[in-house]
Amino acid sequence: MITTRLTERFDLDHPIISAPMAFAAGGHLASAVHQAGGLGLIGGAYGDPAFLEQEFQNAGNAPVGCGFITWHLKKALETTPDLLATVLAKQPKALLLSFGDPQPYAAAILDAGVPLICQVQSLRDATRALDCGASVIVAQGAEAGGHGEGRGTMAIVPEVADLLSKRGSEALLVAAGGIADGRGLAASLMLGADGVMLGSRLWASEEADVHPAMLDAAIKATGDDTIRSSVMDIARHLNWPERYTARVLKNAFTDRWHNNISGLLEQADEQAALWKEAWQNGNTEIANTFVGEATGLIDSVQPAKDIIGSIVADAKTRLTSFATV
Amino acid sequence: MITTRLTERFDLDHPIISAPMAFAAGGHLASAVHQAGGLGLIGGAYGDPAFLEQEFQNAGNAPVGCGFITWHLKKALETTPDLLATVLAKQPKALLLSFGDPQPYAAAILDAGVPLICQVQSLRDATRALDCGASVIVAQGAEAGGHGEGRGTMAIVPEVADLLSKRGSEALLVAAGGIADGRGLAASLMLGADGVMLGSRLWASEEADVHPAMLDAAIKATGDDTIRSSVMDIARHLNWPERYTARVLKNAFTDRWHNNISGLLEQADEQAALWKEAWQNGNTEIANTFVGEATGLIDSVQPAKDIIGSIVADAKTRLTSFATV
Repeated sequence: MITTRLTERFDLDHPIISAPMAFAAGGHLASAVHQAGGLGLIGGAYGDPAFLEQEFQNAGNAPVGCGFITWHLKKALETTPDLLATVLAKQPKALLLSFGDPQPYAAAILDAGVPLICQVQSLRDATRALDCGASVIVAQGAEAGGHGEGRGTMAIVPEVADLLSKRGSEALLVAAGGIADGRGLAASLMLGADGVMLGSRLWASEEADVHPAMLDAAIKATGDDTIRSSVMDIARHLNWPERYTARVLKNAFTDRWHNNISGLLEQADEQAALWKEAWQNGNTEIANTFVGEATGLIDSVQPAKDIIGSIVADAKTRLTSFATV
Repeated sequence: MITTRLTERFDLDHPIISAPMAFAAGGHLASAVHQAGGLGLIGGAYGDPAFLEQEFQNAGNAPVGCGFITWHLKKALETTPDLLATVLAKQPKALLLSFGDPQPYAAAILDAGVPLICQVQSLRDATRALDCGASVIVAQGAEAGGHGEGRGTMAIVPEVADLLSKRGSEALLVAAGGIADGRGLAASLMLGADGVMLGSRLWASEEADVHPAMLDAAIKATGDDTIRSSVMDIARHLNWPERYTARVLKNAFTDRWHNNISGLLEQADEQAALWKEAWQNGNTEIANTFVGEATGLIDSVQPAKDIIGSIVADAKTRLTSFATV
């Protein structure tokens, strides 16, 4: 057991949260993470209400949370005005917002008595999240898989820790980006975090919804084989704000388009169709595998419970290894 | 005292190496770091022999090392064929190579009985460095100030640790990038490093050769205020390989040119002249301040001895804080 403020406030066995990864983090993974003693979050992705309903059902009675893409929530609410209210009515264990201004949604979340977790990619965003009443700040470094920004985990985590300290804030701090084993958990606690958020490591679990060919590609890859790019989003017309790129495994698609955005724009629809077909078929040379640099630390797909168990055991060994310094 | 394999092999009090920062890390800083119990490295920069001679003199009798920009060494040796031999004849405590293939120079360094430190920015480069007989691998994350590449400290350090383990290598591992205080040192040890290399934190020391206006700018800045860019190098015709960018404080110069390389190329000579003049004058809106994301963790300029002392004391407190987990 590693006890931190995070385990105490959220009644967890381990200071570990699963990232609400779009499409990969469904109810089965969130529930498995809960069973393993962590906090499981369903990936709300682009706000499809039928998908969310299904995934909360898949989580069964496990008290799990949910995450949304903040900038996209406005569009999602135009299509499904009761989206947020419906999720809050389920009394999720926490609601996470990432990538954008949480202010328009914070009051509804807090009024529902649901803890607001804000994932941030800069010190500025951390300040804004605290102003919105976030009870947990996830400082996400550029090592992370999927969407993110440019700051590194090693420097942003202690800088946000200092911000919390200067403000006298009671908010918790969680480190994300590049963390896949006990070393990353132990290091994050040294940096001043109360716990970690795991993306890639739990993406490569038996309970995640990931094509087997993508799991194979990730297990073979090193961290060098990843890239932050926007070409997948540009092709799919997802209109992500320019500041956010996504870390994925490099492949023929990123090789061809990463430095030729204007060329991609000329045939975006055609390329997006090819990309989406490849995604369905697990063709990893066209569709990109969404993992972070931590892919280089992952060599097997395991049940979430085993992953979390070994991370905690290893972190504990390391944390006590300097006891006699 | 924090004892690691690094302190034992290099006979140090603390597992800390100062980065051989071009222009900022002279003999005074290297000597001060040695006096404080760490390993001090003079920045060989672009290989000016008179500069190097002066800086080794400034270090006095302190056993210090020296670092070179690997890709540039070929050019430097064309101008000064005995450059490397002259430095090796001084029996530096270590010779560091970073940014390029160390192979052409490794034999001369090892033959002189001088430990070869290779700073790497990818797993691939770490493999090559081991093949060249490096006795220390510095895994440098993108958080770092000055030149570097894209991988983050949090993920590259444990991945290189695994590489060393798989190869059964006796080489030491040092973490660099985003480390400026006891938290970063403690975290690096948890990640499997034997010590840390400090750049920005010792750049902001009394013994470094830095314009006071740049120190002021760095102390006021947060990590958000930095950017990785090539525009400073492009203007100055330094011909850095494309993969290496430099992290600096954003300013009017990077705002204007970072997304307009073709515009910069059209007036490179004029802009370089303005930039160099601003560098001399400490005009931080035109010349860029070379610091990493750790600038957000630095709030004062202190003697190197005090910096190192407080880092070690804080790291020790943190490392023993989980002793009763």
